[in-house]
Amino acid sequence: MKFKSPPVNSLSLDFLTEFCISLEKLENDRACRGVIFTSAVPKIFSSGLDITEMCGKSTEHYAEFWRAVQEMWLRLYSSNMVTIAAVNGSSPAGGCLVALSCDYRIMVENPKFSIGLNEAQLGIVAPFWFKDTFVNVVGHRVAERSLQLGSLHTAPEAHRVGLVDELVPEEKLQEKAAAVMAQWLALPDHARQLTKSMMRKAVLDRLVAHREEDIQNFISFISKESIQKSLRMYMEMLKKRKS
Amino acid sequence: MKFKSPPVNSLSLDFLTEFCISLEKLENDRACRGVIFTSAVPKIFSSGLDITEMCGKSTEHYAEFWRAVQEMWLRLYSSNMVTIAAVNGSSPAGGCLVALSCDYRIMVENPKFSIGLNEAQLGIVAPFWFKDTFVNVVGHRVAERSLQLGSLHTAPEAHRVGLVDELVPEEKLQEKAAAVMAQWLALPDHARQLTKSMMRKAVLDRLVAHREEDIQNFISFISKESIQKSLRMYMEMLKKRKS
Amino acid sequence: MKFKSPPVNSLSLDFLTEFCISLEKLENDRACRGVIFTSAVPKIFSSGLDITEMCGKSTEHYAEFWRAVQEMWLRLYSSNMVTIAAVNGSSPAGGCLVALSCDYRIMVENPKFSIGLNEAQLGIVAPFWFKDTFVNVVGHRVAERSLQLGSLHTAPEAHRVGLVDELVPEEKLQEKAAAVMAQWLALPDHARQLTKSMMRKAVLDRLVAHREEDIQNFISFISKESIQKSLRMYMEMLKKRKS
Repeated sequence: MKFKSPPVNSLSLDFLTEFCISLEKLENDRACRGVIFTSAVPKIFSSGLDITEMCGKSTEHYAEFWRAVQEMWLRLYSSNMVTIAAVNGSSPAGGCLVALSCDYRIMVENPKFSIGLNEAQLGIVAPFWFKDTFVNVVGHRVAERSLQLGSLHTAPEAHRVGLVDELVPEEKLQEKAAAVMAQWLALPDHARQLTKSMMRKAVLDRLVAHREEDIQNFISFISKESIQKSLRMYMEMLKKRKS
Repeated sequence: MKFKSPPVNSLSLDFLTEFCISLEKLENDRACRGVIFTSAVPKIFSSGLDITEMCGKSTEHYAEFWRAVQEMWLRLYSSNMVTIAAVNGSSPAGGCLVALSCDYRIMVENPKFSIGLNEAQLGIVAPFWFKDTFVNVVGHRVAERSLQLGSLHTAPEAHRVGLVDELVPEEKLQEKAAAVMAQWLALPDHARQLTKSMMRKAVLDRLVAHREEDIQNFISFISKESIQKSLRMYMEMLKKRKS
Repeated sequence: MKFKSPPVNSLSLDFLTEFCISLEKLENDRACRGVIFTSAVPKIFSSGLDITEMCGKSTEHYAEFWRAVQEMWLRLYSSNMVTIAAVNGSSPAGGCLVALSCDYRIMVENPKFSIGLNEAQLGIVAPFWFKDTFVNVVGHRVAERSLQLGSLHTAPEAHRVGLVDELVPEEKLQEKAAAVMAQWLALPDHARQLTKSMMRKAVLDRLVAHREEDIQNFISFISKESIQKSLRMYMEMLKKRKS
């Protein structure tokens, strides 16, 4: 599955909706046993949640958007398919979550590409289920430090702390992803799926149990004037940087 | 304690019963404060659960067998003695569980010896308490990947991912195990035992609370025709390999 | 904040009370966003809980002392400020807990300085919340082994197992601590504080929920004649070593 939503593959409501529909189709297609996620946009895997969806919109819109973010993660993290992230560009915040939710992460070894849950840098807090997913990959200590600092790790650093499993030169990425996929598909589906579910169930159940509460938290947080102001300033900065 | 049940030290019902009795005797012997587990069979530490106990038997037999597997782990993982695995051969599945349940693991550095919870490769799923024991040793990420792939790690790999604590040449194994035992026995028993119990209680309690349910799960899983078929094919393959 | 309670900065009831008052003052001072903990006593960061408070005293005294130890940890581990331990000397037991409770640990690279939760060596058991704090930093396996053996890790070892984040030459310690502080203070306070709280809440809540029970446990444990005897012998040994 190639993300192609220029300029930066941000996770807008449209993107998330389409993502979930595509994933469900593949999930129900018995011929499809695995999926590789990569980007068709140069230098960016995914820039994360679309800030325009969180800025100056109605409460209803925030609720709808957040439910779509949750849905994306619930489907991806619990997918019965083998999921591999072939990270061919930078991947902050929600983009990092997509990678963290896969079974395996391969990243282009370019030190200009970075990845991480950098929410704290924007003055916001990663939701508990972003955190749980992160802890399951890198452990409690690395997650605590990285989340508090809102760290964006360069590819080599990301590999060193365990955020990605492997680094490869850009031209070898697809080949490597296919090889890893073949290795994972060599296992009997049923046993692999039950094993994956056993490993991830506790964290998935936690969001399912607190889903509405999590939406309300998001709305009340994002509706604060101070947060809206931070996001507007951040968007201004992004616009200026472009021009 | 030397495992001597040729050809491959598989954990049959007889083996498990004898193992529990021996362990209990040592546990009650105040002169015995620690035990080193190793194998008297060349190249194999333990090949894990005996597949013949899980193939073509009655429901009652499956229940009895599974209760014995649980009992072995409950006793070993909660042992008041210092437990050291001197792994002098390959150790898949249940054999790996025995090693994981000890306080310390030393393995012969022979790269032909491998160790791991490879259940997924046989089309079956490691029980949740195998998984919990594994996560307590290697952390969530290594466990997730290794369990999904049913990985058998060579000795050097096992050391690198933290599955074993130390590698030594075969001729140094017993000497090294004795030295490590001396180091652990230098601690006051009471404080060491309470500390061990504090670290392992949550995971032990979880099986105790769900023991009957876990037996029922095992029976209904193992009784499936598809699973029985996989196991029969696996046994055929083993037989052919021997001849 | 410089610990200056010669000869060894032991955590006496007075020390703990003063520590909590100072911390609360800083916490309420809006101009203070971070604090660096270090020692004014050569070669010792803190020698941990003051054994004289636990030896030959009344039940009421034990209760008061233990409540003060809990209070210190609850305040430090949940502090809204950025907390950095600049460990310029050895730091066993309770001294190690102080360092573990900070956001970041820098230690002088002198291999004569050691740090660890060595309670088991004294015949006592680290409380569950010492253990929880330790596991959050180094993971379950390192914690299990280190706690069972009551290990005091030399500075290089402590760095290798993740107990401290960084080693520096003694003369660079304050400079490095200030640089790390600047890095952490670059983050917006509110987002950083909420993130920290999300990471630490489960472990903090656990002590809050069991606080009285934990005090009773401490009293009944420390009142045992065998424990009192161990502590008296340990104190004798310390006195002899001094003279």
